[in-house]
Amino acid sequence: MRVGFMGLGIMGAAMSANLLEAGYELMVYNRTAERAEPLREKGAAVAGSPVELAGQCDVIIIMVTGPEAIEELLWGEHGAAEALVPGKTVINMSSVSPSYTRFLDETISPSGAVFLDCPVSGSKKPAEEGSLVILAGGPEDAVRELEPVLLSMGRKVVYCGQSGMGSAMKMTVNILLGTMIEGLAESLAFGERAGLDASLILETVLAGPMACGLFQLKEPMFRANDFPPQFPLKHMFKDLRFILETAYENGAEVPSVHGTVQTFSRAMAQGLEDEDFAAVIKALP
Amino acid sequence: MRVGFMGLGIMGAAMSANLLEAGYELMVYNRTAERAEPLREKGAAVAGSPVELAGQCDVIIIMVTGPEAIEELLWGEHGAAEALVPGKTVINMSSVSPSYTRFLDETISPSGAVFLDCPVSGSKKPAEEGSLVILAGGPEDAVRELEPVLLSMGRKVVYCGQSGMGSAMKMTVNILLGTMIEGLAESLAFGERAGLDASLILETVLAGPMACGLFQLKEPMFRANDFPPQFPLKHMFKDLRFILETAYENGAEVPSVHGTVQTFSRAMAQGLEDEDFAAVIKALP
Amino acid sequence: MRVGFMGLGIMGAAMSANLLEAGYELMVYNRTAERAEPLREKGAAVAGSPVELAGQCDVIIIMVTGPEAIEELLWGEHGAAEALVPGKTVINMSSVSPSYTRFLDETISPSGAVFLDCPVSGSKKPAEEGSLVILAGGPEDAVRELEPVLLSMGRKVVYCGQSGMGSAMKMTVNILLGTMIEGLAESLAFGERAGLDASLILETVLAGPMACGLFQLKEPMFRANDFPPQFPLKHMFKDLRFILETAYENGAEVPSVHGTVQTFSRAMAQGLEDEDFAAVIKALP
Amino acid sequence: MRVGFMGLGIMGAAMSANLLEAGYELMVYNRTAERAEPLREKGAAVAGSPVELAGQCDVIIIMVTGPEAIEELLWGEHGAAEALVPGKTVINMSSVSPSYTRFLDETISPSGAVFLDCPVSGSKKPAEEGSLVILAGGPEDAVRELEPVLLSMGRKVVYCGQSGMGSAMKMTVNILLGTMIEGLAESLAFGERAGLDASLILETVLAGPMACGLFQLKEPMFRANDFPPQFPLKHMFKDLRFILETAYENGAEVPSVHGTVQTFSRAMAQGLEDEDFAAVIKALP
Repeated sequence: MRVGFMGLGIMGAAMSANLLEAGYELMVYNRTAERAEPLREKGAAVAGSPVELAGQCDVIIIMVTGPEAIEELLWGEHGAAEALVPGKTVINMSSVSPSYTRFLDETISPSGAVFLDCPVSGSKKPAEEGSLVILAGGPEDAVRELEPVLLSMGRKVVYCGQSGMGSAMKMTVNILLGTMIEGLAESLAFGERAGLDASLILETVLAGPMACGLFQLKEPMFRANDFPPQFPLKHMFKDLRFILETAYENGAEVPSVHGTVQTFSRAMAQGLEDEDFAAVIKALP
Repeated sequence: MRVGFMGLGIMGAAMSANLLEAGYELMVYNRTAERAEPLREKGAAVAGSPVELAGQCDVIIIMVTGPEAIEELLWGEHGAAEALVPGKTVINMSSVSPSYTRFLDETISPSGAVFLDCPVSGSKKPAEEGSLVILAGGPEDAVRELEPVLLSMGRKVVYCGQSGMGSAMKMTVNILLGTMIEGLAESLAFGERAGLDASLILETVLAGPMACGLFQLKEPMFRANDFPPQFPLKHMFKDLRFILETAYENGAEVPSVHGTVQTFSRAMAQGLEDEDFAAVIKALP
Repeated sequence: MRVGFMGLGIMGAAMSANLLEAGYELMVYNRTAERAEPLREKGAAVAGSPVELAGQCDVIIIMVTGPEAIEELLWGEHGAAEALVPGKTVINMSSVSPSYTRFLDETISPSGAVFLDCPVSGSKKPAEEGSLVILAGGPEDAVRELEPVLLSMGRKVVYCGQSGMGSAMKMTVNILLGTMIEGLAESLAFGERAGLDASLILETVLAGPMACGLFQLKEPMFRANDFPPQFPLKHMFKDLRFILETAYENGAEVPSVHGTVQTFSRAMAQGLEDEDFAAVIKALP
Repeated sequence: MRVGFMGLGIMGAAMSANLLEAGYELMVYNRTAERAEPLREKGAAVAGSPVELAGQCDVIIIMVTGPEAIEELLWGEHGAAEALVPGKTVINMSSVSPSYTRFLDETISPSGAVFLDCPVSGSKKPAEEGSLVILAGGPEDAVRELEPVLLSMGRKVVYCGQSGMGSAMKMTVNILLGTMIEGLAESLAFGERAGLDASLILETVLAGPMACGLFQLKEPMFRANDFPPQFPLKHMFKDLRFILETAYENGAEVPSVHGTVQTFSRAMAQGLEDEDFAAVIKALP
């Protein structure tokens, strides 16, 4: 089985390296070609265009920033769509809304190719360590068949249901991710205003039942007030907007997400978009 | 040293039992006297009034629901205040606002008694197990001197600064506690609307970096849709209102707390006040 | 000059009737043809397709529910775009976002046709009376030249700047429209919960400095608890979502719009979409 | 009938001058005595203490900033409460919460004096012009009997029901007042971010169905970006907090008030407390 991987950003570079390491015959494509070099050196083939990659691979993985980039890869010049035929599987691992995922499925399926919806939970470090949680939607047999491929990038595949349900689970988990970081940021900012030391607050939180891997991961950032991007703030902001749109479509109520998105919007306006999303604390006075 | 304990609710009953077990000579008082019986059987003396307790004890601990109950104990009929003299220490462990704590300090200190501000982080189970985290404000030497007493009820004493800072830390930690439960509730409600199974969402969350003791504790409640009170919803609602008042006084911004308090307010209006605070999910359609 | 009008909903039917009455030679098109009948009877020509209308008219007005309907008219089967050439002017009067308006401008202008952006402030009754306020964006000379056409549908043309600025003004005005109705609804619901009579509240409001045409128009609806659509709730909900998207793009902060959109979202989930937007009060318990 | 007036701030000074002008025999009291001078010059008697005023007057009006000042006047040193006997009427016109109003009623009524609850709608200018709307709660016959006194300060008395209902109506009307100014501020800030001129926005709003006395009154402030206090921002902030407390007690839902109070809180933190409440726009970037 030949695996193709399109999109070699922070996440994609780490995930495709893990595919290689697991022994898959890998072909990669990235719009700016130099980002493919490190993978070529490790043994990956490099495609000159999306259609070349799609023509030569059985499984075509997409991991980019959103709808626009996906559409460029599929239906842009030399787009992959031309090469989709029965027997091939397209796996979108990019974070997009459930309704956009259903649109992708409806547009790709007529070609006879299978479409899977497999966004991931986890950021840079789990991507590098191959410990992502993969949230899979699509035909269950196809997901089970490709589980070994997916497990070379992650430590767990959660089967969520038909196409679109992987994205729905991603949004669901990211509600918690966004509101927890916002909650910690509000807590720290509130405490500091009241005269408490941020270190003491972090120590107290991490000594109690709210201690978790997420807060442990971000603790040094808050202590140092320095936020190198593991999960860039602009991506969380994008996800929060998807979440609101989906909530409005489904009639779900998310009042604390409405609070959270406003702080993230201010953080974007302050130019924090490329910092880690924990930098949202800088938008709280 | 003789220790007095006033307020034998869910928390107070467990905490005073731990004081007894640690070997302290204990006298208790509760407005409704029958709640003192189990402690009398274990060897505690039972006071007939707050002033009797305060007269006979060196350390007077208060653990009640709020300002009104505190004032009844201190300045009501046969109130404890009459017996406060130098050498005695009053420890308020009830959850109240920092500004009310400062009022207590200013009102009690002229008697010569020392006032400490020691609210706790943790609910029923940690109270029973003696594993509360105690957030201490007041003169540091007095806190250090009474640390053994406090550690018979908890596993950690965090010294937060002068009087009022214990309450400030409690509010700070409860911002996180309230927004995390709200975030999990919104996440579950959103996911279910999108067609996901609540069990699968909980499984996914508990497999990732957001897994924590709090969510593990509440997981069976969400699965069973049954919320026996560990930390009653009405108490979290009260704390959220203290948090807002304090934020307004200090100029802190807490947008996701504003989202959270609205769901809790609706839950109160739905009559969920005596269920565990995780029952807030029932207020989300 | 021959004027074409596409989209004969509540607003469009009234607006095109006013164009006829003003003496313009009018051709109309509507997806469901029977809605064109009343206008045919008054003397309008009826086009069989958008491209027929665009081929025969100098000015092509579009008044539909949103992007999807616009795209069907312009680029669907027998779409108007094929007939756009220099000398023709396309006026979009539908309510869409500023960014979508700029997309329309960029897509239409290469044909040589002029694109104007002219959404309206006002609902059913002002449309019928020709008293709409028209918020115009695009080349100023083109707006001034067509001002007589516009003034046959409205009583005032506000020139707002380049293409997209008409939509920006529409969003700006609708922030106020949405938050004022939400504010009145919250006020009434709050007062009734406190034991006041809704009639007395309305009387008090209308006796003071907040009395305005909008509240006078809606007063009978609130009194009768019956909300026949002048401006359907689903359209205000759509506009609120455009407003949020635009605010996120521009870094504008709109906290009370975030409160408002949540009530409207709940109202949508309750099935109130086709009632007047003042029915949002039914979503407040 | 002798009328006493305590509290000679912006509002009280204007209201008591109107009482004098209407021919009432007036006695005034103010904590800082010099504020009584202009009234003495116009013919008012000046009391040396609240109890002196209450002893000599049949009707005792209170118009101060809140509960603390009220309690100082009634139960502080030489407080008015000592002189309350059957036949006297206390009218609180200060803005306080309905629950605090009920507390005043319950505390004053045992003296035999009648208590009325008469907050006002309107700020500096209507106070000067005698065109306030007076929102009256208490025994209906007492309100009707004193209507001439009230109408010398306002142009309309709205009888709202038993004691506390005047305050409830005040809160209800101020929900609208606060959210309308917040809505206009968000609208202007949003529009300016999108490239529109504030003057053009104001012109458009004032040409449409949202035009009202309130916006006409504030328009020059927004144009000049200068906000001399008619209704100080800190007072609206106080009222918004009363509104939230009352909403939480009654189970009313006020999502856009939650948005509004956050902007006002930030404005307070920015030091805008003594400007007119329309200055809240400065807290929106």
